[in-house]
Amino acid sequence: MKVQIIAVGTELLLGDTLDTNSNYLSIKMRELGFDVYKRVVVGDNYDRLYKEIEEGLQQNDLIITTGGLGPTEDDITKKCCCDCLGKKMVLNEKSYAKLRKYFNEDEKAIQGNIKQCMFPEDAIVFENFNGTADCALIENNGKRILFLPGPPAEMKPIYENQVQQVLEQFATDCIISETLNISILGEWDMNERVKDIIESSNNPTVAPYFKKDKRILRITAKASDRQTALDMIAKKKQELRDRLGMYVFGENDETIEESVYKVLKEHDLSIMTSESITGGMIASKLVNVSGVSDYLKRSLVVYSNEAKIELLGVKAETIDTYGVVSENVAFEMVERMFEKFNVDCSISTTGFASGENAGLVYVGLGYKNTIKTLKLQLHGERNKIRNRVSNRALAELRLMILENVSRETF
Amino acid sequence: MKVQIIAVGTELLLGDTLDTNSNYLSIKMRELGFDVYKRVVVGDNYDRLYKEIEEGLQQNDLIITTGGLGPTEDDITKKCCCDCLGKKMVLNEKSYAKLRKYFNEDEKAIQGNIKQCMFPEDAIVFENFNGTADCALIENNGKRILFLPGPPAEMKPIYENQVQQVLEQFATDCIISETLNISILGEWDMNERVKDIIESSNNPTVAPYFKKDKRILRITAKASDRQTALDMIAKKKQELRDRLGMYVFGENDETIEESVYKVLKEHDLSIMTSESITGGMIASKLVNVSGVSDYLKRSLVVYSNEAKIELLGVKAETIDTYGVVSENVAFEMVERMFEKFNVDCSISTTGFASGENAGLVYVGLGYKNTIKTLKLQLHGERNKIRNRVSNRALAELRLMILENVSRETF
Repeated sequence: MKVQIIAVGTELLLGDTLDTNSNYLSIKMRELGFDVYKRVVVGDNYDRLYKEIEEGLQQNDLIITTGGLGPTEDDITKKCCCDCLGKKMVLNEKSYAKLRKYFNEDEKAIQGNIKQCMFPEDAIVFENFNGTADCALIENNGKRILFLPGPPAEMKPIYENQVQQVLEQFATDCIISETLNISILGEWDMNERVKDIIESSNNPTVAPYFKKDKRILRITAKASDRQTALDMIAKKKQELRDRLGMYVFGENDETIEESVYKVLKEHDLSIMTSESITGGMIASKLVNVSGVSDYLKRSLVVYSNEAKIELLGVKAETIDTYGVVSENVAFEMVERMFEKFNVDCSISTTGFASGENAGLVYVGLGYKNTIKTLKLQLHGERNKIRNRVSNRALAELRLMILENVSRETF
Repeated sequence: MKVQIIAVGTELLLGDTLDTNSNYLSIKMRELGFDVYKRVVVGDNYDRLYKEIEEGLQQNDLIITTGGLGPTEDDITKKCCCDCLGKKMVLNEKSYAKLRKYFNEDEKAIQGNIKQCMFPEDAIVFENFNGTADCALIENNGKRILFLPGPPAEMKPIYENQVQQVLEQFATDCIISETLNISILGEWDMNERVKDIIESSNNPTVAPYFKKDKRILRITAKASDRQTALDMIAKKKQELRDRLGMYVFGENDETIEESVYKVLKEHDLSIMTSESITGGMIASKLVNVSGVSDYLKRSLVVYSNEAKIELLGVKAETIDTYGVVSENVAFEMVERMFEKFNVDCSISTTGFASGENAGLVYVGLGYKNTIKTLKLQLHGERNKIRNRVSNRALAELRLMILENVSRETF
């Protein structure tokens, strides 16, 4: 099925609002095996929109519009879509009942907004639970138009809970992607380890990506139905996991802190951080995960030398001798956490976020009285460095725990 | 000048890459007073791109393309643009010299990439300092095409440092927007205070926006040149600042933590946080600001009751009597920070991030032995709540300092 996506909204053309709907729908269309050859953004203008839809219908089987449905936008999009397919609108009882309820039987408001309840008789109407403008899929002679609301918080739930199952009946192929999230390994190292799998995988395909701070392997399967595609992906994921072992820390949206939390929970381990350069970012990431309070009781932000000495008990001598950004200080920070706070695992950070040596960072990692340190030389601006240190420290601690736990088992 | 933007790239249509270039260029065109009536995304396909450019040239004075310039993409876009305007390409000496240098005089590589050095004789060529593909503005009979590279990190510097000044000669109007960032005031409250200014401002216009966690007033001026527009904005900003006073915490990209840092620096005040629900997020935000180490020496993440008692010295009795999420605990956390750490300012947080009472948060604020507490009832998911608490706490502390400082002055 050939699809064209049209985003409607003058605010998009002005650059006030970034259009993310079109990208979202592109991914969804690919999942159904539909082909998107073109996307368009136009303003809230009936004539221009009409022209786009009319032309689009000549080349495509399905036009999807987003936006231009609200009462203030005068329902441009809906009218335009219906006109293009030669559809008359009648009052939709379900939408009307919703409107009456919404405006609390206020007759004046209801009549002022009644256009929102008008749909072609044979339209498949989708209820908008997060806004007032319902939307629909309409059809004439095998040509279809789906019009969806503009706000992503309204559009996405409607698509996922109502539209997708309707469109699935037209799907010939199902194309699904999932990702494995990789930590610690560099780009080259990761590719070397799975090069043969990448090269020999045609369906599913395996592609490495380096997005921002994330290293991922994307596995994409094409099959006649969703379940088959998912099964194919599951098998390939296992093959990659067998190869990469503990470097795979999660799938899809899973973050490194969620992955660390799972390990803490599984092995019932308490954790604590003492952070200089990261300034509480690691603790804050961990606290992002619901349930972490069972394992993280406290942490310290020891940004100054005096805080490292007074709060944590690092020796002034160590700082004087080796400098505060040093392996020795990172090591001692972990040592003191074991002594003073009796935790199972700990992370310390000390480094330069700016200045001449910006990006030089020492991380200390502790697991049950084993201490290791790590020297990092990172690039980029202040907050990128701090974020990278945080993610790397969490990934390294996770690996350290897993390696030690597997050794303890023998 | 009428402009159409065309983003080229199959990866865009597949949803692998979010097109942010078109939005960026929309804003830039608006700044020049150019009108963008339509944006298009097409794949790496010569025929489809040709059709789009050809049609676009009929309706517009300028077509801007991004993407499809790299050697692997076979220079589709450049060839297409030149063909559409009937332009022959010849070897561009400057690009050629750059290529020779890039490939270190390796004749085979140079010949393999020589297409990248071909441009129409009368093209205005823009050098790409962040990639190999140079780009250009070409013209025929008053119709113009500007082709730019796809990666934003290449496209934006070229636009800002080279293209903008060329396009400025065609600018009739200059339209510029700036924002004032507002804290603490709710949507309704903010609107009430500046309603008359908003209504009476035609040029510059003033528009309130509520984006994510940000409340802003956007001021947009239209003038014959950049400086006049900036002057008009400056005047309107002052009018709004006079009205909203300390609730304006910054402009454009300035964050609340940067604004707090400025206040700490101006009045030479030390700061510390003791965080339960925010788990180090407030400290981490402050550490985002370069130079904060002069004012923030340490902070505590006291996530558990025992940490509040042992690290900070909160009385077990207070927690038992009032509950750990209470005004009394927030108050005592600030009190203990004054006693134990002798800081000028401090922030404490205690609240529920999930569960039945999710979003109930108490914030304690301290400024030179004055303590105040704040009860918040927030909505949304865990991390939204934590982020809101952090921003609100920083904004409230800033206000508390400014109010007290202005009182001290009298």
